[in-house]
Amino acid sequence: MEALLRQSRTMCPFLSKTSPATLRSLSTTAAGHDVSPGAGSMSNLQVLGRRCPIMGKALAVQSARSGNSALAGAFGGVRAYHSRVNRAKLHTSTPKEAQAIDIENLRGKQGLAPLPPTAQKPATAKPAHLATPNAHHGTKFDYEGFYHNELDKKHKDKSYRYFNNINRMAKEFPRAHLASKEEKVTVWCSNDYLGMGRNPHVLKSMHETLDNYGAGAGGTRNISGHNQHAVALEDTVAKLHAKEAALVFSSCYVANDATLATLGSKLPNCVILSDSLNHASMIQGIRHSGAKKLVFKHNDLADLEAKLQSIPAEHPKVIAFESVYSMCGSIGPIEGICDLAEKYGAITFLDEVHAVGMYGPHGAGVAEHLDYQAHKAGRPQGTIQDRVDIITGTLGKAYGCVGGYIAGSAKLVDTIRSLAPGFIFTTSLPPATMAGAKTAIEYQANYQGDRRLQQLHTRAVKDALSAKDIPVIPNPSHIVPVLVGNAEVARKASDLLLEDWGIYVQAINYPTVPVGQERLRITPTPGHVREYREHLVEAVDAVWNKLGIQRTSEWAAKGGFIGVGVEGAEAEEPLWTDEQLELDNVLRELKAGQGATGVLEAVLENERKATAQAVAAAA
Amino acid sequence: MEALLRQSRTMCPFLSKTSPATLRSLSTTAAGHDVSPGAGSMSNLQVLGRRCPIMGKALAVQSARSGNSALAGAFGGVRAYHSRVNRAKLHTSTPKEAQAIDIENLRGKQGLAPLPPTAQKPATAKPAHLATPNAHHGTKFDYEGFYHNELDKKHKDKSYRYFNNINRMAKEFPRAHLASKEEKVTVWCSNDYLGMGRNPHVLKSMHETLDNYGAGAGGTRNISGHNQHAVALEDTVAKLHAKEAALVFSSCYVANDATLATLGSKLPNCVILSDSLNHASMIQGIRHSGAKKLVFKHNDLADLEAKLQSIPAEHPKVIAFESVYSMCGSIGPIEGICDLAEKYGAITFLDEVHAVGMYGPHGAGVAEHLDYQAHKAGRPQGTIQDRVDIITGTLGKAYGCVGGYIAGSAKLVDTIRSLAPGFIFTTSLPPATMAGAKTAIEYQANYQGDRRLQQLHTRAVKDALSAKDIPVIPNPSHIVPVLVGNAEVARKASDLLLEDWGIYVQAINYPTVPVGQERLRITPTPGHVREYREHLVEAVDAVWNKLGIQRTSEWAAKGGFIGVGVEGAEAEEPLWTDEQLELDNVLRELKAGQGATGVLEAVLENERKATAQAVAAAA
Repeated sequence: MEALLRQSRTMCPFLSKTSPATLRSLSTTAAGHDVSPGAGSMSNLQVLGRRCPIMGKALAVQSARSGNSALAGAFGGVRAYHSRVNRAKLHTSTPKEAQAIDIENLRGKQGLAPLPPTAQKPATAKPAHLATPNAHHGTKFDYEGFYHNELDKKHKDKSYRYFNNINRMAKEFPRAHLASKEEKVTVWCSNDYLGMGRNPHVLKSMHETLDNYGAGAGGTRNISGHNQHAVALEDTVAKLHAKEAALVFSSCYVANDATLATLGSKLPNCVILSDSLNHASMIQGIRHSGAKKLVFKHNDLADLEAKLQSIPAEHPKVIAFESVYSMCGSIGPIEGICDLAEKYGAITFLDEVHAVGMYGPHGAGVAEHLDYQAHKAGRPQGTIQDRVDIITGTLGKAYGCVGGYIAGSAKLVDTIRSLAPGFIFTTSLPPATMAGAKTAIEYQANYQGDRRLQQLHTRAVKDALSAKDIPVIPNPSHIVPVLVGNAEVARKASDLLLEDWGIYVQAINYPTVPVGQERLRITPTPGHVREYREHLVEAVDAVWNKLGIQRTSEWAAKGGFIGVGVEGAEAEEPLWTDEQLELDNVLRELKAGQGATGVLEAVLENERKATAQAVAAAA
Repeated sequence: MEALLRQSRTMCPFLSKTSPATLRSLSTTAAGHDVSPGAGSMSNLQVLGRRCPIMGKALAVQSARSGNSALAGAFGGVRAYHSRVNRAKLHTSTPKEAQAIDIENLRGKQGLAPLPPTAQKPATAKPAHLATPNAHHGTKFDYEGFYHNELDKKHKDKSYRYFNNINRMAKEFPRAHLASKEEKVTVWCSNDYLGMGRNPHVLKSMHETLDNYGAGAGGTRNISGHNQHAVALEDTVAKLHAKEAALVFSSCYVANDATLATLGSKLPNCVILSDSLNHASMIQGIRHSGAKKLVFKHNDLADLEAKLQSIPAEHPKVIAFESVYSMCGSIGPIEGICDLAEKYGAITFLDEVHAVGMYGPHGAGVAEHLDYQAHKAGRPQGTIQDRVDIITGTLGKAYGCVGGYIAGSAKLVDTIRSLAPGFIFTTSLPPATMAGAKTAIEYQANYQGDRRLQQLHTRAVKDALSAKDIPVIPNPSHIVPVLVGNAEVARKASDLLLEDWGIYVQAINYPTVPVGQERLRITPTPGHVREYREHLVEAVDAVWNKLGIQRTSEWAAKGGFIGVGVEGAEAEEPLWTDEQLELDNVLRELKAGQGATGVLEAVLENERKATAQAVAAAA
């Protein structure tokens, strides 16, 4: 649509001479009051349009029409609205007036038919051809009926969501109780990947801060909500990612939305290149920016490069992507994207939400993990992470708290701090939340045990499910997506697991994943010890039987689907190597005697003992 | 701009026959991959445009141009970009191909010049007239320079914000320490209006929940983040406002943004009528909705009615406004707006963010306060609050925690729950936060003392400042805005108060208030006892002298400004009447002997003793 407008600008002497700012002003101003950006009355531009030899005729034709039922559609309705407004004006001001007025004086005079309330008369008192738009005696919109229909649509396409009441018990992680405290279940789909939500150091820090500094921050960052906890947390985040600065938001949804919306709207001619599987928060941020968006195929560097090539070198470009895509577990080609960004003068915006705490020697994410040894040795300069311009992360998943952040150059962070409404106009996170999150980041930066054990449990679960012909969507990360392929069946499988087996795994349906790719998304944690894992595998196997859900071999017989049962596909090597997991020695010792699963379980048995000792020592 | 497009649709046979959805698809699709809504490559529509007898000529003229430096402006840059893309296409596909292709096949074929990476050659190897858009050897955009300039602009116009490090001490409310624990100040601008952030019941509830359910929720509401605390809190909020249902968000910024964006984008032909002083979160929500927006003059029912009249009766309309406008303390005409909404078939969206906890017998806000006796007697039916369709509020100001909510009909709430990305795709608030907020709401619903004392302290501060000729902007609420009228001076006043007097009052500058209306915004709490108030008044008076800031009498000499020093202006009666504050008896007894301030201080001395006893009992 905008392309057409640009063409019109070339042809029309008025449009080509009028600045975009003036056009926007004309199209958004009505009566003479302060108008916030985006205000939508268009009468000033329309009045000018009537003076145009081309558009004037079109408007005259439109004014002559009235009550045309063909205009009542989605677009037509709005058109009818404007034509009626115009008609009302024709009866309240003379054409001569309309022609004589100056653009600067239009604001006050060309309001939307501002009849004073006292001038109102019942519609019946007026001749039909004089009916004004204030037809409030007509049919009013049925809001409740509209809500009902929207909900009905979701019920019909099975995308209506029923929330499960899950109360995760800090003292019995990873167990939870349902609405009743007696009904206990094992949680297998939380994003508290490392159990930091019940980490004694985090809780201690929060209790102390709560007592000393209270429940809430009491204001925005600018008005009494900035404090030592915010300063310390942002310092810690910046240090974690080896960036100059960081900024904390209410959530990473807000961080992504606010940062992309601000960059895209402020950078002149900005183009945002977005991975096709990007999270909703980035999609919204890009949409809210109003910037041009080019979607590249998921993890496809060739497609990304083709799109980068199409944009002039001097125009700013932001490449927005993720490290771990949470619903399929795939991992973004960070280094390749950095290469392209440098080649084409773009900046990189990397969402590490599902990776922070989980990868790298300090838990900074996949970008850190890719230069494991350098970061372990404290040499971040020149690494892949160092080349990423903006990293966003969450405090609400592996770090067990709530909130989100960006990290980047000092000037970038200060710009977002100074311009993003979603940061400026909102209450700060509570001091205790910020203190707890800081403790969690520091704990994970100094302790590899949780994420190592999480990875080992992930391997064990993937191995065991695959051994049962359960269709795990292959990936190199800690996510265990199990393909179902139907919304109703996925929900039933989730319900059966909860009701019959005391296992909570949420079904993931549209719009979170495409229709036909519905799945169960399993997330092992360090707390999912052998008994829980064996119970899970037994339960999933039984539910697959009961509901007749397709197995890997069945998908294979059909040629495979989204990586499941694809013949000859390369095995997805885990991002955490055996060496990084320090498995080599143990494996070498045990490899002769046992099958792979047996070896892993033997390793885990050792881990379990060590962890129990560590937890006991910390508590 | 959209009006022009609509006119084009009338004239053009292609546009008039093509559905908006198809047009949008053509204008947003490029190469053959999944495209999220809002994707911005326009080549498909442009290719069709070239086949049009009118637009084709314009495009041909454009294609013939190249490297025109006059096109390098904000709009022109984008136009140049497209013209270059077109030129590239002319060299990579024959006109015949372009004409033969089917619309359905355009997606895959008409990407943005997707030259494979291997086909690249250095720009110098190509004749100048064949230069393709992948001119990555040209000047790249200077991102850091751009950030620098944006920040420089804010430094120059004095809108750059320096955050004060303020650590509000729970055990010494309303005192805080600065970066050093030794440097203590009194906080006079927190939105923790009632001191609930340190309320022992709230803290107890949070400590217990933290121990039992951990630091974070661990997931979105749909995936393991829904729990008994969310259920109980939403029940409590719904009950507070006597609505069928409620929904909790990360913040009220998100609640307003997500709800208005969802309503405005989903309701067909929706028009949102917005008070000119609405908060940024509503302005953003309306902008994000893409709906038509009409801004009405602040609190002006006649202007609102004129705008309502201009919209067809059958079109959905949302009137978005606030109860207490936080920067000036004015109060919205809720009943009058409900009357108009009913008359014109609109729904009302009322932001009670600065009023919840503070007004009404149960602290439900101004809407509840307007039918004080009915609500006190437990009869919400037919009240003004009952007539408001959607109420939004915060848990982060008078309730002392963090988070926001909406309350309304069951179907409305379920619709937002089911459709709003800002709700769906974000981690739930922590269980302890939700438990603390619920405790705070219940405490305030059953105890009038805090908000009563807050109102009495507000009266005392307003009286004392006015007695010193300090320009308090008159209003009927608990906000004490003190006019300065200059950004730099306001900041200096704030700095002097902090440095010389140990008083923290943030300067409020543009964009939070209009240029020229800069102010100090003072918010008394129940903790601001006599010593603090006397100290404040003395300090403000001294700073006014030191900086030579205008007094009320000086504004009056100039004819007054935004309510300050306006001769013959009606006095702004406080919303909390003497009767509601139960002052009548005390006042009657004391009136003969003392001036108004003396009486109030005598009352407050009694209050102080009673409160001290109550706090001691609760702790």
